[in-house]
Amino acid sequence: MDPYLIQVNDHAALPSLRDVHVNLNGKPTAGGKSKGRKPHWAVRASDMSKRTFNPIRSIVDSMKVEPHPEKPLISLSLGDPTVFGNLPTDDEVIQAMKEALDSRRFNGYAPSVGYLSGREVVANYYSCPEAPLEAQDVILTSGCSQAIEMALAVLANPGQNILVPRPGFSLYKTLAQSMGIEVKFYDLLPEKSWEIDLKQMESLVDDKTACLVVNNPSNPCGSVFSKCHLQKILAVASRQCIPILADEIYAEMVFEDCKSESLAKLSKNVPILSCGGLAKRWLVPGWRMGWILIHDRREIFGKEIRDGLLRLSQRILGPCTVVQGALKDILHRTSPEFYHNTLSFLKSNAALCYDALSRVCGLRPVRPSGAMYLMVGIEMNHFPEFENDVEFTERLIAEQSVFCLPATCFEYPNFFRVVLTVPEEMMLEACQRIRQFCERHYQGGEGAQDLDCDK
Amino acid sequence: MDPYLIQVNDHAALPSLRDVHVNLNGKPTAGGKSKGRKPHWAVRASDMSKRTFNPIRSIVDSMKVEPHPEKPLISLSLGDPTVFGNLPTDDEVIQAMKEALDSRRFNGYAPSVGYLSGREVVANYYSCPEAPLEAQDVILTSGCSQAIEMALAVLANPGQNILVPRPGFSLYKTLAQSMGIEVKFYDLLPEKSWEIDLKQMESLVDDKTACLVVNNPSNPCGSVFSKCHLQKILAVASRQCIPILADEIYAEMVFEDCKSESLAKLSKNVPILSCGGLAKRWLVPGWRMGWILIHDRREIFGKEIRDGLLRLSQRILGPCTVVQGALKDILHRTSPEFYHNTLSFLKSNAALCYDALSRVCGLRPVRPSGAMYLMVGIEMNHFPEFENDVEFTERLIAEQSVFCLPATCFEYPNFFRVVLTVPEEMMLEACQRIRQFCERHYQGGEGAQDLDCDK
Repeated sequence: MDPYLIQVNDHAALPSLRDVHVNLNGKPTAGGKSKGRKPHWAVRASDMSKRTFNPIRSIVDSMKVEPHPEKPLISLSLGDPTVFGNLPTDDEVIQAMKEALDSRRFNGYAPSVGYLSGREVVANYYSCPEAPLEAQDVILTSGCSQAIEMALAVLANPGQNILVPRPGFSLYKTLAQSMGIEVKFYDLLPEKSWEIDLKQMESLVDDKTACLVVNNPSNPCGSVFSKCHLQKILAVASRQCIPILADEIYAEMVFEDCKSESLAKLSKNVPILSCGGLAKRWLVPGWRMGWILIHDRREIFGKEIRDGLLRLSQRILGPCTVVQGALKDILHRTSPEFYHNTLSFLKSNAALCYDALSRVCGLRPVRPSGAMYLMVGIEMNHFPEFENDVEFTERLIAEQSVFCLPATCFEYPNFFRVVLTVPEEMMLEACQRIRQFCERHYQGGEGAQDLDCDK
Repeated sequence: MDPYLIQVNDHAALPSLRDVHVNLNGKPTAGGKSKGRKPHWAVRASDMSKRTFNPIRSIVDSMKVEPHPEKPLISLSLGDPTVFGNLPTDDEVIQAMKEALDSRRFNGYAPSVGYLSGREVVANYYSCPEAPLEAQDVILTSGCSQAIEMALAVLANPGQNILVPRPGFSLYKTLAQSMGIEVKFYDLLPEKSWEIDLKQMESLVDDKTACLVVNNPSNPCGSVFSKCHLQKILAVASRQCIPILADEIYAEMVFEDCKSESLAKLSKNVPILSCGGLAKRWLVPGWRMGWILIHDRREIFGKEIRDGLLRLSQRILGPCTVVQGALKDILHRTSPEFYHNTLSFLKSNAALCYDALSRVCGLRPVRPSGAMYLMVGIEMNHFPEFENDVEFTERLIAEQSVFCLPATCFEYPNFFRVVLTVPEEMMLEACQRIRQFCERHYQGGEGAQDLDCDK
């Protein structure tokens, strides 16, 4: 490589050429770098930063479409319940933060795993006789994302693999790939309310499998596993001796006619790192308050994994201390009505959206039972104009100003995801526009215009 | 390895033995893992988690001493200005947070690099004609630690090396080693107010050197580089074509008779990632609000490094949105008196501690000019009872209940670090006790008890 070569980037940086030091008098400068050649500027981003790849960002950024100019945009794409202002957090949550601020007690460094008091509060909140927790079993993290990052980082080495759901939240893959950990996808079955294809999942296990990621309730599916299905998942983990990373950020966000169970409560021996946080249930995702619950009743993780998590927590320390200081009041004073109201709103919107889209030819919505999403299958053969779900959703924006994420973002083509947190009238309007869009593009068969929709 | 072997840990986990699935009927279970052998539980912490090593924690944890039972402990060990309650943050800072909470506007996800408004505020605050900054040059992070982590992660690959100061903040090494990046130490010279030994520093550069870490004002030294010295550092970086990671978390925390300059202001071509945050100057280290300022006037970093930082920011997202929302008012409404009062307090305590310890036989304090620390040399030959600085500080706890960090924590034996944020009367009391301790153990020469201290 030419040692005078200067990395020229997109911004056509000619000025930098003139400023590079050129050792004109030929004397060697100090330092090993200049041995035999002159230094030059060539600053490259690390391989790890290049491996850190967010598929949603990449797919969405490539969707270069403008919404229809005469229709206001309805965005059903972002898993953030706060964007429409219709789902504010509880007043008690705000009040708890103000009191933490006024106390002036929560401005200094907390231990890297969080204040003992905060860990205790979370432990007590999630403890149950079948899966008891103490403060030492809780690590407070900067959001559930850091919880997942730390859990993966402690369990897997580069070259090992993890099993993750398909469709599933893209962060597992983003983080794993950045760390050089292989991702193997196990299938969720839409026809079985997104239960896991257990046989296919178990067939993926090999001696390099470091953990099984289970996300329940599910993003993007809005599904909730039954007790029986959770037991079967645990049986596979137990048989194969694979620890579980349980992404339970939507814990207890389950519609009332359904029952929520935690994996840990049902586990007799499988060690579990359960990741959660305030984001979704308390409707404050920006506050970055997450946690890892260490369930290890048979001491299979033991000191080894606990020490590893402690060491990892010291890299950047944990969440904002004001939120840590408010945690006790947030968990204890938030009214039961608050949770109930959020869930009945989500349930009602889910029903509304499911009913509306069930009646649209060419769409196959899957009824959700929790979380805040609904997945809709696209019968692509009836929409021959579109190559795939990305093009389908792209055109939906252009023609109807409705933005849903194509499920290719979740490694699951020919579906799209609807976020259910929008106000009811927007939900209805969005479904109406999706119907119009589908009616316009639906083709009954062999590309003919005559509809043979049985709906 | 025996496939039935179960990892037994410190907690003597016999119950786990009984619960492991043993495939008694000999049928092969599904999955590659069980091919030819039966799975067993053997969950190990990753290599990366084991490489993540915090020397301070390890040294301090190994100091198994109890403070003197009749003297209340004075801890001068923790770089947290909030622990004694004498340095509260400004009321305007608390007020800004409450208003951000009341607005209900800052509860959702921010972009992973931070709200545009927050980035703008930080850019304007630090922008100057010589080193202009715009919003796009700022990335908000979860504390300065995450800023440093991201800056290292984007600049260096495993197998490359970085140059870090000795004595220096231990986090650089902790993070670098966890990422497989080699650390090379350049020397700071106590006799030159901790200026860098530039020649030795430059001699460390080789073609695997990814960046130069410069910490100014310094932890643990409390030193502040002159404009002239900063220009010489930049000249080395420019000559060797090495980008700089500037840890400027103590920016502007400089005693009034000294002048603070930022590296970026003086740089003509060297690209700089400057890491900072609210922690120290605004006295809220627990809030985890940090930032990276990208100084790249010659576009040497270019899109390459900016994109890399953006990708890395998407791993766990940035700081708490409430603090982001309050940032504008925190930076704009904090009164000048607040900064002034903090600094005059620190300056006064520094003078007090320096004067007191200068008069102690066997100690060589180095006068600080900023930050919140003072380093004290120990003439170990006059304290033959003690092996090293760790034993010296250990015994200081046991006999006088004064806890200072041995500078071995900063890769610099035979010194200890004093934190200057304690109330004045505690500072005086601590110095008094240190004097007593030294008087008791000081030996003039050849192990004799006669003192030949010239102080």
